[in-house]
Amino acid sequence: MIRPMKAGFLAVGSELLGVDRVDTNSLRATTLLERFGAEMCRKVVVGDSVSAISRELLSMTESFDLVIVSGGLGPTADDVTREATAKAFGLEQILDPAIVEDIAEKFRRMGRTMAEVNQRQALVPRGAQILDNPRGTAPGLRLERGQSTVFLLPGVPRELEGLMRSYIEPWLEERAGGAGRETRVLKVACVPESELEQQIHPAYGEFGRESITILAKPAEISVRMVATGPREERRQQLDVMSARLRDLIGAAVYSDQDEPLEAVVGRILTTSEATVATAESCTGGLVAERLTRVAGSSAYFEGAMVTYSNRLKMKLLGVEGETLDRHGAVSEEVARAMASGVRQRLAVTWGLGITGVAGPGGGSEEKPVGTVHVAVAGPAGVHHRRLQLPGDRERIRVQSSQIVLEMLRRALLRQGKERAESS
Amino acid sequence: MIRPMKAGFLAVGSELLGVDRVDTNSLRATTLLERFGAEMCRKVVVGDSVSAISRELLSMTESFDLVIVSGGLGPTADDVTREATAKAFGLEQILDPAIVEDIAEKFRRMGRTMAEVNQRQALVPRGAQILDNPRGTAPGLRLERGQSTVFLLPGVPRELEGLMRSYIEPWLEERAGGAGRETRVLKVACVPESELEQQIHPAYGEFGRESITILAKPAEISVRMVATGPREERRQQLDVMSARLRDLIGAAVYSDQDEPLEAVVGRILTTSEATVATAESCTGGLVAERLTRVAGSSAYFEGAMVTYSNRLKMKLLGVEGETLDRHGAVSEEVARAMASGVRQRLAVTWGLGITGVAGPGGGSEEKPVGTVHVAVAGPAGVHHRRLQLPGDRERIRVQSSQIVLEMLRRALLRQGKERAESS
Repeated sequence: MIRPMKAGFLAVGSELLGVDRVDTNSLRATTLLERFGAEMCRKVVVGDSVSAISRELLSMTESFDLVIVSGGLGPTADDVTREATAKAFGLEQILDPAIVEDIAEKFRRMGRTMAEVNQRQALVPRGAQILDNPRGTAPGLRLERGQSTVFLLPGVPRELEGLMRSYIEPWLEERAGGAGRETRVLKVACVPESELEQQIHPAYGEFGRESITILAKPAEISVRMVATGPREERRQQLDVMSARLRDLIGAAVYSDQDEPLEAVVGRILTTSEATVATAESCTGGLVAERLTRVAGSSAYFEGAMVTYSNRLKMKLLGVEGETLDRHGAVSEEVARAMASGVRQRLAVTWGLGITGVAGPGGGSEEKPVGTVHVAVAGPAGVHHRRLQLPGDRERIRVQSSQIVLEMLRRALLRQGKERAESS
Repeated sequence: MIRPMKAGFLAVGSELLGVDRVDTNSLRATTLLERFGAEMCRKVVVGDSVSAISRELLSMTESFDLVIVSGGLGPTADDVTREATAKAFGLEQILDPAIVEDIAEKFRRMGRTMAEVNQRQALVPRGAQILDNPRGTAPGLRLERGQSTVFLLPGVPRELEGLMRSYIEPWLEERAGGAGRETRVLKVACVPESELEQQIHPAYGEFGRESITILAKPAEISVRMVATGPREERRQQLDVMSARLRDLIGAAVYSDQDEPLEAVVGRILTTSEATVATAESCTGGLVAERLTRVAGSSAYFEGAMVTYSNRLKMKLLGVEGETLDRHGAVSEEVARAMASGVRQRLAVTWGLGITGVAGPGGGSEEKPVGTVHVAVAGPAGVHHRRLQLPGDRERIRVQSSQIVLEMLRRALLRQGKERAESS
């Protein structure tokens, strides 16, 4: 097996160190690298500083096969990538008359005269290969330094993309020799990260620790698998890993595509020709909003009642005043009545009910902030869970919505299984 | 003048080197640094690798007064920031029993048992100060290295933000010696960016081009002002700029705090002792969800009817079958009937109605994707707008919700003005 190529990305530009912009050119580069099994190992942003750029170039060319630099090739005084590269590698800078003529020609075609400052863009560290950039004024540059190849590209995304396609892609293709790298993601709902970690622990030993990564969000975890090698080999490896992990994690895996829970629930509802409606209090419509994010959700989503007040819980959902009085709005009884009420009144297969204390106010000793009751009413009855959720208002709402959707998914699967068994 | 403090930011996590995620925690750090005139000089992303982290830590602590590291403090085997820091600075790692107990207690409060792996989170490089993290399990850490101070923070944004506020902000304040830089934001709804740009053009000349920045999102623009200098001086400057910009932009400015539209609408509803309910089709509950994001929204938000099907538009909102037949579900008449219907049936002061084609399917020549009708029903009658919105499903839904909330805000202001004039 060929050793995977290692790459570093250096984004140059003081504007990328401010409060409202991040480098995204590196994502374009990473997408290209992944296709050829090359690994992005390090991304750095520095300002328009000769010393900062030189230093990083020296460090990256020591460690990586490929170094991509974006930005700092413009005509103004703060565009110093060429100068910094020449300095780092001890190269003289030469004014290339062919580039001067090319830039002047580009200006003429736009009906303008080349400004004096644009001459800077024709400076080339001795020995660098010039990379033609039909989408902009300045060319890119390619240099060799020890075992490392350095590409200097403009920071403008479409110029960078054009040059990557014309020069970096063939470079990668040649060196990859058919080998590649591929990822797959298992999505898991409502399992704590540390618990999942223990479940999948055996797989670290079997497949190597670096090949499996866990990414946690509130009530949702992505387990990412990576495999390298020739296409068939790495696909097979991913199939094996995926099957093993599904085995270790069980039914909590809701997708092996990188898709949200509401999309999976929507697919099962569609195949089972079922419909759904929600009755929401503390989530304020979030569950309905999530279900309807999915294009085509009108096939199974009928509607929702958001009942913030007790008055509306009674009027719209038929929750009994006595139930509210005796147990309070945040209670198992009310969640069940909401789920059943919306199921019955909107005449759907599945009704979801959510009532809780999202905070920051409204908590009590008996029902602190984060107390949420969720219920799923279906053909076989009503399921209920009482939750005690950590975090702030937003996080409590997101987790509640995730958990009720996961309960619906499990109920749909159980029902499908029973149906299959009885037929 | 004191030499500006220099800072570096190291984001740790292999997921930040993939194709679909970028580090954004550094933006949060930069925002804080700017307030104290400190300069972000270098941002680096590395994977979960002990050697890559150690190497970068050594390099940054040589150059910068402040080094912020985010991520890699979790409980799993790929969380190696603690280990890498100990290695870089030649420190022993010690298991801190007080932290173990604190984590165990946090788990107990959530009704769960601490997993064995969470013990890792209690490892501390000798001599490090422990930074209490009430929003998550693992504490942050602070170390001194030569002239440099290093903060290790969790990668979860809200945990990072909490720790920055509690520990880095006081650190910066102490060292800044009074001089600072401050920003203020005017938020503007539903004005095209180019139109706003023309409106505020005079202010560029008066205050300097660099002191005003426009940031556009769908149906929402932030106009950011920056002033530097001693506290009183820069505050005064911001007051002057803010007044001038409000003058140029007019009523479209909905806030000079960096707050969302639903919070402003909620405040006006509270003062005018009014209530609101929504009737939503294409937004699927998004408007209700936004209104209830605001803590305390139960004071004015009564509920919502999400009526995806025509059946429910009739049943729940009293929209006439004939109106639906003659004009179609996406029409001015239906939007008006939805707004009035929910206002009347839920007995609230204001009813909002939204019906449209969010796509990707469902468009026609007459009503292409992006056609949305919004209506606001209030004490003085019903206002309606027909929208033709660009973008994908999500963007159409977000813009629709923004525009209907802005219509409500304007209606509330008009009503308040009329009341004031008639009294």
